[in-house]
Amino acid sequence: MSKNEGRSAISPKRSEDYPEWYQQVIKEADLAENSSVRGCMVIKPWGYGIWENMKQELDDRIKSLGHENAYFPLFIPLSLLQKEADHVEGFAKECAVVTHHRLELKDGKLVPSGELEEPLIIRPTSETIIGESFSKWIESWRDLPLLINQWANVVRWEMRPRLFLRTAEFLWQEGHTVHASEGDAIEETLLMLETYRSFMEEVLALPVIIGRKTESEKFPGAVDTYCLEAMMQDRKAIQAGTSHYLGQNFSKASDIKFTNKEGELEYGYTTSWGTTTRMIGALIMAHGDDDGLRIPPRIAPKQIVILPIVPKPELEAEVYTYAEKIASRLKNLEYHGNKLSVIVDKRDKRGGEKSWEWIKKGIPIRIEVGPRDVESQSAILLRRDKGVKEKQPLLIEALEETVLKVLDEIQQGYLKEAKNFRDAHIKKDIKNFEEFKKFFTPKDKEKPEIHGGFVLAKWCGDPESEKILDELKVSIRCLPLDQSGTQGTCVLTGKEATIDAIFAKSY
Amino acid sequence: MSKNEGRSAISPKRSEDYPEWYQQVIKEADLAENSSVRGCMVIKPWGYGIWENMKQELDDRIKSLGHENAYFPLFIPLSLLQKEADHVEGFAKECAVVTHHRLELKDGKLVPSGELEEPLIIRPTSETIIGESFSKWIESWRDLPLLINQWANVVRWEMRPRLFLRTAEFLWQEGHTVHASEGDAIEETLLMLETYRSFMEEVLALPVIIGRKTESEKFPGAVDTYCLEAMMQDRKAIQAGTSHYLGQNFSKASDIKFTNKEGELEYGYTTSWGTTTRMIGALIMAHGDDDGLRIPPRIAPKQIVILPIVPKPELEAEVYTYAEKIASRLKNLEYHGNKLSVIVDKRDKRGGEKSWEWIKKGIPIRIEVGPRDVESQSAILLRRDKGVKEKQPLLIEALEETVLKVLDEIQQGYLKEAKNFRDAHIKKDIKNFEEFKKFFTPKDKEKPEIHGGFVLAKWCGDPESEKILDELKVSIRCLPLDQSGTQGTCVLTGKEATIDAIFAKSY
Repeated sequence: MSKNEGRSAISPKRSEDYPEWYQQVIKEADLAENSSVRGCMVIKPWGYGIWENMKQELDDRIKSLGHENAYFPLFIPLSLLQKEADHVEGFAKECAVVTHHRLELKDGKLVPSGELEEPLIIRPTSETIIGESFSKWIESWRDLPLLINQWANVVRWEMRPRLFLRTAEFLWQEGHTVHASEGDAIEETLLMLETYRSFMEEVLALPVIIGRKTESEKFPGAVDTYCLEAMMQDRKAIQAGTSHYLGQNFSKASDIKFTNKEGELEYGYTTSWGTTTRMIGALIMAHGDDDGLRIPPRIAPKQIVILPIVPKPELEAEVYTYAEKIASRLKNLEYHGNKLSVIVDKRDKRGGEKSWEWIKKGIPIRIEVGPRDVESQSAILLRRDKGVKEKQPLLIEALEETVLKVLDEIQQGYLKEAKNFRDAHIKKDIKNFEEFKKFFTPKDKEKPEIHGGFVLAKWCGDPESEKILDELKVSIRCLPLDQSGTQGTCVLTGKEATIDAIFAKSY
Repeated sequence: MSKNEGRSAISPKRSEDYPEWYQQVIKEADLAENSSVRGCMVIKPWGYGIWENMKQELDDRIKSLGHENAYFPLFIPLSLLQKEADHVEGFAKECAVVTHHRLELKDGKLVPSGELEEPLIIRPTSETIIGESFSKWIESWRDLPLLINQWANVVRWEMRPRLFLRTAEFLWQEGHTVHASEGDAIEETLLMLETYRSFMEEVLALPVIIGRKTESEKFPGAVDTYCLEAMMQDRKAIQAGTSHYLGQNFSKASDIKFTNKEGELEYGYTTSWGTTTRMIGALIMAHGDDDGLRIPPRIAPKQIVILPIVPKPELEAEVYTYAEKIASRLKNLEYHGNKLSVIVDKRDKRGGEKSWEWIKKGIPIRIEVGPRDVESQSAILLRRDKGVKEKQPLLIEALEETVLKVLDEIQQGYLKEAKNFRDAHIKKDIKNFEEFKKFFTPKDKEKPEIHGGFVLAKWCGDPESEKILDELKVSIRCLPLDQSGTQGTCVLTGKEATIDAIFAKSY
């Protein structure tokens, strides 16, 4: 195969055309595809398997902190949305509007009929519709905190959709909580931020910088928006999740009141926080290479594929039996609270072809078994984090031990690699706007997407100063929680400044 | 409390007003509520917990048969729906239609703008949108069978909505498969029917009659629709799930073709099958009593609540420690592949009030512990399937053993009770339409919902003959798979007949 001759399985390579490489990885790894509805995606089984694992891992963590799942309507009446003016102004304008509830055949053509008295909006997020329920559920401080999470689909009309990163419909979880005090609500906001951080680093092997958004970048209607920012291999930032402290803004709009311990009626303090199928996009761009996807073992739909190699049909039974024996031993292995997911690939295809399919899909471990391995009670182990031809002998007596060790090495290795890459591309010594501008200007005009990376620098805090960033297509990604507290000069204005800020181009 | 004086926790009782009893159980068990969008429901944590367990149990079974989950768009372009004329004609007319993709502020009011070139329908079911993908995914017989399942929300505009039973938006799973032959597709249709049957009987404790729908009752566009029919306590039938053999009808509309082993291009044979949040409605009506919900242990969000009884504040620490000790032992117990779900209810409320809340929620087991129990290393066990005052001493040394035995008895008991009730209300000896009519006519005009139950009788098979049933609000629920094969006379027409049919009023 041509791929064995030093070429890569994905064309173009990352260095040739990063955006197109991204699309090709999704195609070749069979993760998702565009549908006939503009901006909506079909998530195929391999992609959905990743999402199911993300869901299960996050759901366990969310529930272990006392939150309960519930489900709220897909539709928001227009009048309900109208109540939250700031929210709508900044946010909910590009959305799907339902105006009719029937189809009729007219001259053989289906046409909408049955116009609704009030149009319905398909939820772009559920603060308003959930707030309506919360206002009925809460009476006194005894009902607080109210800790609810929802797994759902949401719709935001996107003008420039891209699979996983920006789609009209996407899947997410949205947490919504109500607390008796500002302190409790802020604590919750930061607790969920930390929950996301540990999930992303431990499970997705995705190193993230956590911090607060500036006024101009925060969620409309929020008092404070906290976020998690990861660096992709084109050095752009992706926002992998957000956690909002909403103060009493939404509780006032939704009339969420409670009687406090002093017997007085008070508005609740609310939070909301979410992560989406966008994380799959981040996973692809953080870990993928020129041979396709590389999935961290803890989130892989399957950790291991066993590839039986059958040179002659009469040897098939023997090799298959051996492959199944290895598989059943591995399937019994406990791996981070679940059983290992293992497949024996017996499809009627050439071995090389099958192998490349699994490489492109990013499966962590491939195990090849042939007639000679049956005799010697061994196998060949191939790791997705090593070169495609790097084979390693695997003794069956040490099967379980070896496999668990290798999975752990791959998981840790991906995190370390992503962290090293990121740290190498955070520039910390930029002193003025000239240097700043140069850093974000592509060296090669043919590849406008390649630039310096992140800048960690001082910022004066003046919202006006951020406007200069627009022409560079750069923004303040966050003000890291981890602030140095030192004095310096603002990289945008030259004024005195104490705030540390992360600047980057972003998805 | 008044409830201790022989009165029931739910008012009205089932015998007083069954439909209203149903609404009150949902309210008192805190399962769900209506939202401000007509016909849409909010599923509250206790109700959603039941759905999550249904999902997990069914998902495991569906996956173990080789199906994979995927996700398809919420929207169906009108032109795509237009292709399947029969389907739309019989089915998709009452649906939500999206016509705009933006909101604009005009004179301070939000109004729809950005009219779409082509209206989008919110999926009432996904045959058409999934068929579009399948036509691209399938090339040859090697790609078959294609076995896909989706968990999603769907919308069907309902004129007379009722929580869980009939809501505009509901949650479901929809399986969609493609096969190389009619035989394979029919086998799949029946396999999934059987999968649903065993799930409903084993897990939901819901006895079901499986059978085929008549021509007039089948899914529009299907060759054959199979269904599962359960009897509720008002003796009406509920369709708890369906499995459709679609022949080549949908594959022709969606152009799902494959090259068969002979090298010829052929249309695939498809199936679809689904179950919905309606099952929660069936659960309530099959097992509930005048004190509220009764949840079969295998589907309960929590199997056990521990209620510490603290007569004096200074005894609190001791009793709480003891309660937590019992809880942690129980939480470690393996129960049908999961750990037991146990809660210690330490809320600042009176014991009787808490107890009644859990009774109404239908939790299978309550365990009361007080200071004397700490001393004697015992506790009081109360079962939801027994009288509310029937207490049973529980020795802590036999804790695990006793609890597992009781849960098993409750699970089996509910199934047996429901089965006995159903069997007692299936009339098998009705000979003519006069008797038939009498059976379905309410004895008491004040309670129009109370009638005889199901009729199992012969039917001639003539679609015209079913029309007479309309005035009685009765229909043929199914032609049971288990046919006697005997000769007889049609209960509707008096003609010779061999087909056994189940007739009933239904939800």
